[in-house]
Amino acid sequence: MPRIVVLRIGHRIPRDLRVTFHVALVARAFGADEVWVDQRDKDLEKRVDDVVARFGGPFSVRTGVSWKRAIREWEGRVFHLTMYGEHLDDVVQKIPEDNLLVVVGAGKVPGEVFEMADFNVAVGNQPHSEVAALAVFLDRLLKGEGIHREFSGRLRVVPSPRGKVVEDSTGAPRASP
Amino acid sequence: MPRIVVLRIGHRIPRDLRVTFHVALVARAFGADEVWVDQRDKDLEKRVDDVVARFGGPFSVRTGVSWKRAIREWEGRVFHLTMYGEHLDDVVQKIPEDNLLVVVGAGKVPGEVFEMADFNVAVGNQPHSEVAALAVFLDRLLKGEGIHREFSGRLRVVPSPRGKVVEDSTGAPRASP
Repeated sequence: MPRIVVLRIGHRIPRDLRVTFHVALVARAFGADEVWVDQRDKDLEKRVDDVVARFGGPFSVRTGVSWKRAIREWEGRVFHLTMYGEHLDDVVQKIPEDNLLVVVGAGKVPGEVFEMADFNVAVGNQPHSEVAALAVFLDRLLKGEGIHREFSGRLRVVPSPRGKVVEDSTGAPRASP
Repeated sequence: MPRIVVLRIGHRIPRDLRVTFHVALVARAFGADEVWVDQRDKDLEKRVDDVVARFGGPFSVRTGVSWKRAIREWEGRVFHLTMYGEHLDDVVQKIPEDNLLVVVGAGKVPGEVFEMADFNVAVGNQPHSEVAALAVFLDRLLKGEGIHREFSGRLRVVPSPRGKVVEDSTGAPRASP
């Protein structure tokens, strides 16, 4: 199985804590194996690890990663998500079965990233959100299978038309209206 | 054409400004016509209006909207996006051609919302992000056409494999590496 890693660059503390946390959760929920963040951020690591402890893995977070080195040393393809890139629909069919590093920036991205990436991909050429871009990119890439991935965690949400149904690892339902 | 409106509830100032701004941009970029926000927030309105002025509409934002009244008086279907709901794949084929109100919460959502919605829909039953959920919901609903919508704004991004190419309304390219 090819590995999918999301690389978040330009993370600023505390400004980006919530948005980068969303990026990490989306990476996990939509089928990536890891998230790497350029800026060291223990608080973010703790939050992500906490979700993995409760809802399951495998999924891991690393912070304080040199983005330049990560891109340079990556064995596989590098996709940079940007509204300036080629339209997703023109790229998605060209994506090989290979390890993928998916780069998402916060704020302005260094020009080098555009050069170093194998593909600069736009999930639509309108301004929106790196969180959304990552989710739709992974959803399309994995043909909708990402959100069917099973995790082995202590808690499992049971799909329900009304209210909240959560099972804990003993199998006991814990419903709350 | 059915109308699509995104209703953001539980918006807290200043905590949610950025995430709600992402919700608004995703609504616009993925095919909704309007975003409504429960809490009055002039700063958010200004930011969204600014994007519409530069990158085009039609798209509008309203804040200070009573969510209960908005849901009660909506002429069409109401979808509430929540990780506890029915799986998107089980719902999407049931969605009729009708006006859609798509509800996304910030933080804990009142139990009444689960009752008042026609459908509680989970874009996967894992914790992630309302920004991602909205994007993937609209992308699937509109069968990928949302991100092909044309806007008539002053600025237009020209898809490019490298760098940034933006046209202004006079047609002059403004490239920046």
